[in-house]
Amino acid sequence: MKQVVLRAHPQGVPRASDFAVEIAERPGAGEGQVLLRTLWLSLDPMIRLALDEKVLTGPTRVRPGDVVFGATVSQVVESKHPDFKVGDFVDGRTGWREFAAIDPKTVPLRKVDPDAGPLSTAVGALGMPGQTAHACMIGVGRVKAGETVVISAAAGAVGSLAGQIGKILGARVVGIAGSDAKCAVLEQLGFDAAVNYKSADYAQRLAAACPQGVDCYIENVGGAVTQAVLPLFRYRARMPVCGFISYYGIGFEGPGPDRLPGFMRTIMSKGLEVRGFGGAMVAGADGLKDLIAWYKAGRLQAPETIVEGLDAAPAAFAGTFSDNAHVGKVLVRVAEPA
Amino acid sequence: MKQVVLRAHPQGVPRASDFAVEIAERPGAGEGQVLLRTLWLSLDPMIRLALDEKVLTGPTRVRPGDVVFGATVSQVVESKHPDFKVGDFVDGRTGWREFAAIDPKTVPLRKVDPDAGPLSTAVGALGMPGQTAHACMIGVGRVKAGETVVISAAAGAVGSLAGQIGKILGARVVGIAGSDAKCAVLEQLGFDAAVNYKSADYAQRLAAACPQGVDCYIENVGGAVTQAVLPLFRYRARMPVCGFISYYGIGFEGPGPDRLPGFMRTIMSKGLEVRGFGGAMVAGADGLKDLIAWYKAGRLQAPETIVEGLDAAPAAFAGTFSDNAHVGKVLVRVAEPA
Repeated sequence: MKQVVLRAHPQGVPRASDFAVEIAERPGAGEGQVLLRTLWLSLDPMIRLALDEKVLTGPTRVRPGDVVFGATVSQVVESKHPDFKVGDFVDGRTGWREFAAIDPKTVPLRKVDPDAGPLSTAVGALGMPGQTAHACMIGVGRVKAGETVVISAAAGAVGSLAGQIGKILGARVVGIAGSDAKCAVLEQLGFDAAVNYKSADYAQRLAAACPQGVDCYIENVGGAVTQAVLPLFRYRARMPVCGFISYYGIGFEGPGPDRLPGFMRTIMSKGLEVRGFGGAMVAGADGLKDLIAWYKAGRLQAPETIVEGLDAAPAAFAGTFSDNAHVGKVLVRVAEPA
Repeated sequence: MKQVVLRAHPQGVPRASDFAVEIAERPGAGEGQVLLRTLWLSLDPMIRLALDEKVLTGPTRVRPGDVVFGATVSQVVESKHPDFKVGDFVDGRTGWREFAAIDPKTVPLRKVDPDAGPLSTAVGALGMPGQTAHACMIGVGRVKAGETVVISAAAGAVGSLAGQIGKILGARVVGIAGSDAKCAVLEQLGFDAAVNYKSADYAQRLAAACPQGVDCYIENVGGAVTQAVLPLFRYRARMPVCGFISYYGIGFEGPGPDRLPGFMRTIMSKGLEVRGFGGAMVAGADGLKDLIAWYKAGRLQAPETIVEGLDAAPAAFAGTFSDNAHVGKVLVRVAEPA
């Protein structure tokens, strides 16, 4: 079987050559394990953190020679665990490989209902990115009708869903993305406005798109993209922090003059609430119920960008950090379900 | 009568020579006004923001030649307003002057109950600083028994009260201050530990004082003092932001390498909640009830540093921003009550 291992810790923006595709022996299921065939591999920007020797520690850390960490939708092909039977679909962090022998006590597996939506949505709109978007807008962001929400990386997996949830909540939704093509997609998804941060007058355009100021900003990017939002915050605005793709390449030490005091000033003078969250703060089962209901009612689209085959994963992942045409959840189709 | 005016916008840390003491004509109360005699003048670090042409805008902004903005405890000596009678005590931002003719529609006045505590506490433990400390620890910080709270500028007006409230709540309370003498005062106030940020091994000492990590950090300082707290945060910690005295001198553009990405990383990886607040987010009347009850029960001390006479205000205010022996609320005694 094929698997993708880390060749070397990425320096700055990841490159396809940081990875190697290997042939390995297909494992069997040990006692208490299930053998899974990977159907869909989810390419999340946060994987970059797991690859960085300076950043993440703990069980998700990937060292050279290790199979790359990543969430998948898989199908059980052999089971020595009472809770799973052959043919079941599961979502879990089973890695960049065609088959994985997993002990669910070590790597938690969530059973996927194939009737909720297409299987790929289990790692997208009807999975962690959807629950994250739900938590951004509702649990942490507390977005209300009539408010203005700005979303960075708005064409990404979380952003594209967060914006649609904002419209369901009755808010004005402004997206920030890196190309005019992506901005056009956002408007098709129902965003009220979309601003290309590469335009020369980005800050002015963003201000013009938010005539009432900003009540909630969904942070996915950091850096200059975020600096332009700071002056627009209304008093007691919220800033749910999902990620900082602009820092994943440069590192968290930062390159230039110190922007921390100005950010702190905004927090203080605007009564701003900034709250970070990882997996433990995503909306739980109730969030998933909302997402499935909206999806089935046709109120929530699940945009996806699909690449074919595990060999294509390294280049597609690297592309996530530079100019790309990715919209929505970026997925690798590894195999068809049985 | 005497009044203190701004001579020039401070450059960096304020100096006494940025101010001038003037003799002005004592005003009378116009229609709808009250004439107030200033008894106590409160020297708050945040006045520095009102003096800075680059920072604050709005009604609190002070230009050269203007009487300096500041909260006082005053007594009504003449009234042409139905809600106030001669002899009443009030708290309001009436400025650095011996007498002020005030329209309460323009400058809100709060009646002070002289039985709640000494009059000076109306701008201290039983006033805005107390309500701010209450909001830090309870409303925003949600401090629970057994948690660890770290407080910067812990010997200051808000910090010294916040720490005592932390002990009332059953938390472990660690103060940060700028001298060993201040640290000794904090331990007398019941803090579990106090760390001098000027000690060479400040970060190590702080870590040693917080063996369980930090659940809540009351931010009054910014800069290097705060950087040492970031690695100690537990998951889902809170950081109520009261102020940034270390930035008031240098400005909010910041001097050095960019610390914003590292701060953002902490927010994200720790699920940290950072929330700024100005006056509108202090605990309201209920907070004040708690403070008065604690004070009367002897559970809350109201440390004060008192200087005598309006002439002493400029130097005492400037001293707030450099090495000083100030503990608790810094007050100018302007006159005795009638």
